[in-house]
Amino acid sequence: MADTVRLGIAGLGTVGMGLVRLLEQNRGDVTKRAGSAIEIAGVCARDRDLDRGANLDAYTWFDDPIKLAESDEIDIFVELIGGEEGMARDAVERALRAGKHVVTANKAMLAHHGLSLAAIAEKSGVALNFEAAVAGGIPIVKVMRESLLGNRVSRVYGIMNGTCNYILTQMEEKGSYFGEVLDEAQAAGFAEADPAYDIGGQDTAHKLALLTSLAFGTEASFDSVYIEGIEQITPTDIEAADNLGYRIKLLGVAVQTESGIEQRVHPTMVPKKSPLAEINGVSNCVAVDGDFIGTVMLVGSGAGANPTASSVVGDIIDIARGTILPPFIHASKDLLPYKQAAMRSHEGGYYIRLSVYDRSGAFAAIAQRMADQEISLESIVQRRPGAELPGISARGQAGAPAPVVMITHQTSEASIRKALEAIEADGHVDEKPQMIRIENL
Amino acid sequence: MADTVRLGIAGLGTVGMGLVRLLEQNRGDVTKRAGSAIEIAGVCARDRDLDRGANLDAYTWFDDPIKLAESDEIDIFVELIGGEEGMARDAVERALRAGKHVVTANKAMLAHHGLSLAAIAEKSGVALNFEAAVAGGIPIVKVMRESLLGNRVSRVYGIMNGTCNYILTQMEEKGSYFGEVLDEAQAAGFAEADPAYDIGGQDTAHKLALLTSLAFGTEASFDSVYIEGIEQITPTDIEAADNLGYRIKLLGVAVQTESGIEQRVHPTMVPKKSPLAEINGVSNCVAVDGDFIGTVMLVGSGAGANPTASSVVGDIIDIARGTILPPFIHASKDLLPYKQAAMRSHEGGYYIRLSVYDRSGAFAAIAQRMADQEISLESIVQRRPGAELPGISARGQAGAPAPVVMITHQTSEASIRKALEAIEADGHVDEKPQMIRIENL
Repeated sequence: MADTVRLGIAGLGTVGMGLVRLLEQNRGDVTKRAGSAIEIAGVCARDRDLDRGANLDAYTWFDDPIKLAESDEIDIFVELIGGEEGMARDAVERALRAGKHVVTANKAMLAHHGLSLAAIAEKSGVALNFEAAVAGGIPIVKVMRESLLGNRVSRVYGIMNGTCNYILTQMEEKGSYFGEVLDEAQAAGFAEADPAYDIGGQDTAHKLALLTSLAFGTEASFDSVYIEGIEQITPTDIEAADNLGYRIKLLGVAVQTESGIEQRVHPTMVPKKSPLAEINGVSNCVAVDGDFIGTVMLVGSGAGANPTASSVVGDIIDIARGTILPPFIHASKDLLPYKQAAMRSHEGGYYIRLSVYDRSGAFAAIAQRMADQEISLESIVQRRPGAELPGISARGQAGAPAPVVMITHQTSEASIRKALEAIEADGHVDEKPQMIRIENL
Repeated sequence: MADTVRLGIAGLGTVGMGLVRLLEQNRGDVTKRAGSAIEIAGVCARDRDLDRGANLDAYTWFDDPIKLAESDEIDIFVELIGGEEGMARDAVERALRAGKHVVTANKAMLAHHGLSLAAIAEKSGVALNFEAAVAGGIPIVKVMRESLLGNRVSRVYGIMNGTCNYILTQMEEKGSYFGEVLDEAQAAGFAEADPAYDIGGQDTAHKLALLTSLAFGTEASFDSVYIEGIEQITPTDIEAADNLGYRIKLLGVAVQTESGIEQRVHPTMVPKKSPLAEINGVSNCVAVDGDFIGTVMLVGSGAGANPTASSVVGDIIDIARGTILPPFIHASKDLLPYKQAAMRSHEGGYYIRLSVYDRSGAFAAIAQRMADQEISLESIVQRRPGAELPGISARGQAGAPAPVVMITHQTSEASIRKALEAIEADGHVDEKPQMIRIENL
């Protein structure tokens, strides 16, 4: 590439300003390592007058991201606008068509339109790099796109949302309820004013869809991701998990099974002895199981201005050094169609928590419903200290519901769902059963 | 690159045979991802008749690695012979001069001769890739060489020797002595018949010297690494560490300080809440602290045929896809000279264990020696249950030595050494003081 690589940066929010700061602060090292000066040739954002805590007068201002994307003055278009559709997608598409390399942190856009954008990038012979779109500062995209290519990957999984992990860690440390911790997290800036995208699991699902494509050589398929958020997790679950040797984490997991690929995002029981269990607070981690590598895990900051800017700059330097690879490892036309495994065929262990009326026959009926589905139990815990299993003894306040926690051996999602439906219909429980999947780690 | 990339593999030990197996087993995926067929054009090892558990008849045999290195039939020379000097170095040098790309797992050779070999590679315009030389399957070389280039790195560190980590983990789990566990590890194949290279810390130091070069843009300097092995660690230390909230790990650490670079390999007290403390058995991990990334940590298999072969294949595919980068980030002529920080100026906390005679004034004298060096203590633990600090009470068997464990606040290596020399000279201790550095993590 030329002596100077010229950037057009669209979007001057947290990450955009982190990028500007990095390029100013580490200019000398970046130039030496890239073998070219990396120069900001233009910037663009919605509101020019917003106070961004830094002087941007040195950079040419563009009001229109499309104009910036197509400008003759830039070599790389850095898209930090965000959003699945609209301006971000339009500008990226125009940049690629105009023969500009693109670096983006936009997971939503790529999870939905990565395939078509990759095809345009390949046609134009330019890069579409997105390290910052998955797990912020953690270089998992490069590792999967370049380092692990000797392996058949069987599973990719991780903790990829700092807000959820912060909330679950706080709930565990303080014994607090979800709602309380969410309020605190919002006050502390660890959760957005509208937290639904994070706590509902969509953010993790967008990242997972990209990792799945890299892992299995398939087209990304966000719509096939099974998603459960963390809203239903209670202090009782966290305490019971702890007693049974688990922590609860929101995992994104993609697994190759005989019937297709499973992609799921849900609260998960993680054995305490697994390194994943030790990922606390806003940290993220992503792990890959491959036939030769075994398991490799990357841990770091999954969000924030500086770590994300670090990933963006890594992508920019790759381009400056002439490393232009197909965005999803293979040429987009060679990606396999995504073949979905039905969630009901998922197999694993399960944590079940029931609130059971303390009356004669209740527990026997529950046990029978599990047996009907050939579900065998690894352990059963009565969660009222000193009490017996409900319905077996007359001790305790007659009729009042008591929590019962069960850990099942390996079974199928379909069997569990049928058993829980039957248990609910029998009327021995006073609320919807809680069910949390256990991951083998 | 061409439709076919032809390998010459020199060395058919564990890793070499792992590589052959991988290329046979995952041929289809590797070809598709590399965009070229990866073909073994020649193999070479000392003993052709050795039973290697696989049929190598399909591959052209070379008796002489030099002939293979220079053969017109190969594009990439894969050096898996090992050893700092001799055949490995000769063959690599000849391959590079002949314009062949080189992929190697040889940390000893690179730690000593990496700079001169890199210069030859650059002159020939070929790659010298060595992902497998540092921490086996963990892709830390690529991450440091490509992903983290936006950062000023302040520290790189890790657990990089599986044998040591296995021994320390077993000592912790079983309360056993070093010698016992080493015997078991040798019997189980987790330690070499001659374990000195591993347990003495040299293996870790070779890896560290390479990471230091990548982290700080300096010439590798193996001779500047301060090295202590794990031979002196006792069950008493491990138990005391546990009680104080630490685990003992053999770390390699390189830090940029004001006076230069510190490179050290030594048993280290690692806080239990650090993810490093959870790296058990033969697992490895490497972490990098950078000004924008914060900390990023990679965990995986640091040795073994399959993980190491995975790294070798990653390097090969990079070449097949046309990614040819300077081995140590910068052109070798642009690497900075290594500037060493004196070990005596190292600053940190220390764990000190003394075996103190139980006599009047002993402890006061020790405390005075620490005070003379302005060392302040965070905690002091008398390790004989129920006993008082020696010399303070007359309880216990008069005169018999009792272990005393101290944790210091931040101080300098020079101060600690002076204090311990004075304590030893005073004659209140019956054996050489034990001193283990604490790392801030």
